[in-house]
Amino acid sequence: MKVLMLIAHGSRKQAANDEVSRLAEQISKLEDSEYGAVVPAFLEFAEPDIHQGVERCVELGADTIVAMPYFLAAGRHVAEDIPKEIECARAGNPQVNIEISQYLGESQAMAGLVVQCSHNTGQADEAVKH
Amino acid sequence: MKVLMLIAHGSRKQAANDEVSRLAEQISKLEDSEYGAVVPAFLEFAEPDIHQGVERCVELGADTIVAMPYFLAAGRHVAEDIPKEIECARAGNPQVNIEISQYLGESQAMAGLVVQCSHNTGQADEAVKH
Repeated sequence: MKVLMLIAHGSRKQAANDEVSRLAEQISKLEDSEYGAVVPAFLEFAEPDIHQGVERCVELGADTIVAMPYFLAAGRHVAEDIPKEIECARAGNPQVNIEISQYLGESQAMAGLVVQCSHNTGQADEAVKH
Repeated sequence: MKVLMLIAHGSRKQAANDEVSRLAEQISKLEDSEYGAVVPAFLEFAEPDIHQGVERCVELGADTIVAMPYFLAAGRHVAEDIPKEIECARAGNPQVNIEISQYLGESQAMAGLVVQCSHNTGQADEAVKH
């Protein structure tokens, strides 16, 4: 089974981590997805961390894990920290194929998504008014 | 003219800020976009800041500015800081209509984009190997 591990930075605010978990759940419900499961993982401030995330994927029956950095920019976390953690996870789980995908901000479809998002105006202002 | 202002967090790493500027440029080249221009702006660590970004939009001839928070989670920056800065910009530019859109992570299309991104594997591993 192929499992997607969605790796987010993680936040001290639980609500932000919950957004990532909800997104993982949404992805797992996509009908055209080839993933048998989607597991969230966090680099900092929240659990599961990457090590625990990989363990969870393996428990679910993963033979391939695609680790997807849910990051907008290729800072140190994307360029160094995640690859190092994944190297470590590979060493500990030689029976599993673990791949790292493109990070989110690298997506060629991002420009279109931003424009689409920008069409939803109005509600965002409510927070400051009330 | 309608101008899109892409508001990113901003980073101490210039390369990360450059990614945002490049994205703004990409969006400005989309043929089906209704925006006459796309201006990047940064909350911290980089310029133009939101105030300067709005000034730039006005110089370009904006009568409507759509401020789009390029953020994955609705933390303090999205919920408080950006709306406050925009309120301030509205007060200083009463002739311009300034709207705040959905933030990126709120997009209904995000789940699909993540799956699409996850299909591009391989290259991301090179950084750690070489």
